[in-house]
Amino acid sequence: MEKSAEEMAKEQKEISISQFFEKNRHLLGYDNKIKALLTIVKEGVDNALDATEEAGILPDIYVKVEEIEKEKYKIVIKDNGPGIVKKQIPNIFGKLLYGSKFHRLKQNRGQQGIGISGGVLYSQLTTGKPTKIISSTGDGKDHRFTLKIDVKHNEPKIVENEVVESKEKWHGVQITFVAEGIYRGHKQSVMEYMKEVAISNPYANIIFDSPTGRIEFARGVDKLPPKAKEIKPHLYGIEVGILERMRNETKGRTVLTFLMSEFTRVGKLSAEEICKKAEIDSKISPRKLTHDDVVKIVNAIKEVKLSRPPTDCLSPLGNTAVEEGMKKELSPEFVSSLSRPPSVYRGWPFQVEVGIAYGGLITEPNLMRFANRVPLLYQLGDCAIAKAVSQVDWKRYGVPGDKMPDAPVVIFVHFASVWVPFTSESKEAIANYPVIIKEIKLALQDCARRLGLYLSGVRRAERIAQKKQIFERYAIDTAKALGELTGEAEEKIKETILKIVEEKWREIVAEEGEENEKENQKENNSKGKG
Amino acid sequence: MEKSAEEMAKEQKEISISQFFEKNRHLLGYDNKIKALLTIVKEGVDNALDATEEAGILPDIYVKVEEIEKEKYKIVIKDNGPGIVKKQIPNIFGKLLYGSKFHRLKQNRGQQGIGISGGVLYSQLTTGKPTKIISSTGDGKDHRFTLKIDVKHNEPKIVENEVVESKEKWHGVQITFVAEGIYRGHKQSVMEYMKEVAISNPYANIIFDSPTGRIEFARGVDKLPPKAKEIKPHLYGIEVGILERMRNETKGRTVLTFLMSEFTRVGKLSAEEICKKAEIDSKISPRKLTHDDVVKIVNAIKEVKLSRPPTDCLSPLGNTAVEEGMKKELSPEFVSSLSRPPSVYRGWPFQVEVGIAYGGLITEPNLMRFANRVPLLYQLGDCAIAKAVSQVDWKRYGVPGDKMPDAPVVIFVHFASVWVPFTSESKEAIANYPVIIKEIKLALQDCARRLGLYLSGVRRAERIAQKKQIFERYAIDTAKALGELTGEAEEKIKETILKIVEEKWREIVAEEGEENEKENQKENNSKGKG
Repeated sequence: MEKSAEEMAKEQKEISISQFFEKNRHLLGYDNKIKALLTIVKEGVDNALDATEEAGILPDIYVKVEEIEKEKYKIVIKDNGPGIVKKQIPNIFGKLLYGSKFHRLKQNRGQQGIGISGGVLYSQLTTGKPTKIISSTGDGKDHRFTLKIDVKHNEPKIVENEVVESKEKWHGVQITFVAEGIYRGHKQSVMEYMKEVAISNPYANIIFDSPTGRIEFARGVDKLPPKAKEIKPHLYGIEVGILERMRNETKGRTVLTFLMSEFTRVGKLSAEEICKKAEIDSKISPRKLTHDDVVKIVNAIKEVKLSRPPTDCLSPLGNTAVEEGMKKELSPEFVSSLSRPPSVYRGWPFQVEVGIAYGGLITEPNLMRFANRVPLLYQLGDCAIAKAVSQVDWKRYGVPGDKMPDAPVVIFVHFASVWVPFTSESKEAIANYPVIIKEIKLALQDCARRLGLYLSGVRRAERIAQKKQIFERYAIDTAKALGELTGEAEEKIKETILKIVEEKWREIVAEEGEENEKENQKENNSKGKG
Repeated sequence: MEKSAEEMAKEQKEISISQFFEKNRHLLGYDNKIKALLTIVKEGVDNALDATEEAGILPDIYVKVEEIEKEKYKIVIKDNGPGIVKKQIPNIFGKLLYGSKFHRLKQNRGQQGIGISGGVLYSQLTTGKPTKIISSTGDGKDHRFTLKIDVKHNEPKIVENEVVESKEKWHGVQITFVAEGIYRGHKQSVMEYMKEVAISNPYANIIFDSPTGRIEFARGVDKLPPKAKEIKPHLYGIEVGILERMRNETKGRTVLTFLMSEFTRVGKLSAEEICKKAEIDSKISPRKLTHDDVVKIVNAIKEVKLSRPPTDCLSPLGNTAVEEGMKKELSPEFVSSLSRPPSVYRGWPFQVEVGIAYGGLITEPNLMRFANRVPLLYQLGDCAIAKAVSQVDWKRYGVPGDKMPDAPVVIFVHFASVWVPFTSESKEAIANYPVIIKEIKLALQDCARRLGLYLSGVRRAERIAQKKQIFERYAIDTAKALGELTGEAEEKIKETILKIVEEKWREIVAEEGEENEKENQKENNSKGKG
């Protein structure tokens, strides 16, 4: 052997998660300098919106992107949230995989505990500069930290730390990154992200000092959306490995109380039914369950009917917000929206909201994707939303185009869930779960149907107007000819003819109206069946 | 405030990397039960091939996939590698982000320290079963471990462990997983993976006991490829953050020796030039470099000409292997291959090898993608290889089809590098770095050109044959008519005419040949310029 197992053993060692993402930074959204700026802003703003909402505060967010040297930027994000207590600041910013959102089931923007520390990691990697954090909880003290990440150990490395008395008594967090980047105003830019954030978070007030000037996204609604509540996991979607771990950690003293207390929608009757079907004594301690018992329980769950998980863990935008947002930003001539009832994948509730806007100031087709109110600007091709859009037969609804409308149509899709299955840590696309694609497609079809009806109405009106024009032109010419022939006054003949036209015209409108009615009925019937 | 910073602090905690991937298992390739089987087999076989090659052993690999219950499989992978020392077995299999390949620059299949422990994680999650490992280093002792992962702490949890005397004195590793899965024989299956592994690793002997019977992939070559050597990082592609860390860890006593000893291709002259351009005393300790000094050095590097990194860290297949592999498995009528000279991205050397096979037993277009000899079967749409293929103007080379040939053409692309920038941890697609796409495209264009020449030759031959046929038919008919007219023997007239045809024929062939020659010259000229 050229190399023995002993020699190989010397090379084997642990890799820290920071080292891993330092080398694989494209997985966090740092593929290139343009995208890097967007990623940093996005992580900061997402956190700011999550924190303010959770504390029940109407968000006031300030963002600044400033070029301080060629391709080197200072990025500031400031919020009016509850602030972060001193002890937690180093961990939240200086440690990857640290946070509050991973372990709970509730709609949040963040969910991994990677995003904001990823920004610190990228900044120090590209410019060597630490990140500055100022936080206050409103007690008149500013906690100022300057920190880096100790990449080898995935631990915060505090460069400076001081407490400063503040007269303002403000509360919130301000972060300052210095990182390599390139600022562009194109389609996948910081500006586009900001615009779409304003649409999906109309209750936020955002000031953006961009390298090309200040833009203010004023608050459109003075009320926060209903708060998402934390829920327990649902038994549908539970796996053997998870259940084995949970029965060791539960405070439930019997299998019965274990099932009832650790899961949502499990009443006494359901829990008893599961135990019966699994042939297990419901009164024994869950710790006494053997591996085979757990497998039996998992199989029994499939046979027991349980209610769907509660949906107050979700915070959908609502039809009004979707439509108002689109009207405000796009000025279309037609808009329609639809919220699907909540559904479940792998035990996790989710809900789909769709809007379609047409015409007006819209000049080209566009697809706006959102996950838990966060705009998704990259990896369109991988996204369940794009897949669902491509599966809609647009021509059927009178909209030209294959896969994507080839018309002035803006499609808005919001996916809200307690856990968004992103295709990568950079959270840019939703994984292709069939049930998710199906829900989005159904919502799109419904909205497309309404757009189709509107468009057929528009076309009908155009047709009728054309016919009337022809008759009117005919009336004038005929009056002239008849006047010459008979010597009667042209004007009188014209009036008579126009009267006839007007009568004829009413008939046409009435006929078209009947046709319209019939089509509507057909439409409603097929809707009822589908 | 509805929720204070103090309340929020209570919810913040660390997330282990095992927990992260348990919830995000689709990132590791466990999106669904069909793909799960492939992923487990792939991780096992990749490790087996890496281990045997590194020890200089011709690989004998045994794989078994057996359905033990509905959608529950036993997967066995056994190799004849050097084995793993007892102490390291728990870490390698029971801890994510642990391995020998992350920290070194050298072409390997594995690189993250996630793959094989990911299989253990998925197995215990879906079936609750631990994974069994038997390893021997050839000393007559079998180390048998049965283990799980303690997900909360990302640490191995040993269920059983014993040492058994073995009479065989074998060396190697045998792993047995029990996991949920579905076995299929379709395009992205275990079988397809095995076939492609056999093409890209012709020196391996593989026996596969599939659910539908045994298949043997016999060794085609009795020699291992030249071994890839480990290299040091190259200064092109180095970033401020990395350099700052390295200057703290180096044994180099001066900046000069630091640069010379820690990086490849830095001689004394280059190191001095860098220091001079950065306006830094080359004799001071690297630890004395300030942050600004480091930034200056990184900027100076861009202005200094350094040789490309050595390429013995790569282990390309070579033209012969690519062509022989395609001939053996595909039986085409035409095959061509090309290796590009090694290139560099972010300081890391890489090399592209391309093969194109046409006709024969090939009936439909296919693209085979490989990274460090590993077949890539998923996420085609995201892959730099697919992007490069779609950028080739196939029609220009006489091959019908837009983006992908619409003809019986199989394209083979191998990307070899010390660090493959995969788009996700499941290692299914190569990230879209422009320099990588460019290299693949250049190689494809060269091969396509040769295929184009071959096809134009085939078409020319067909054209000439058609013309000759027309002349011959004409000769026979004319002879008949002339015979009747003149009374001469038909046979004689026919002979005379055929003689004329034969002469005319030679002229045509000669003309076509000249045209051919001209086109070839044109081709070569444009090649020389490109």
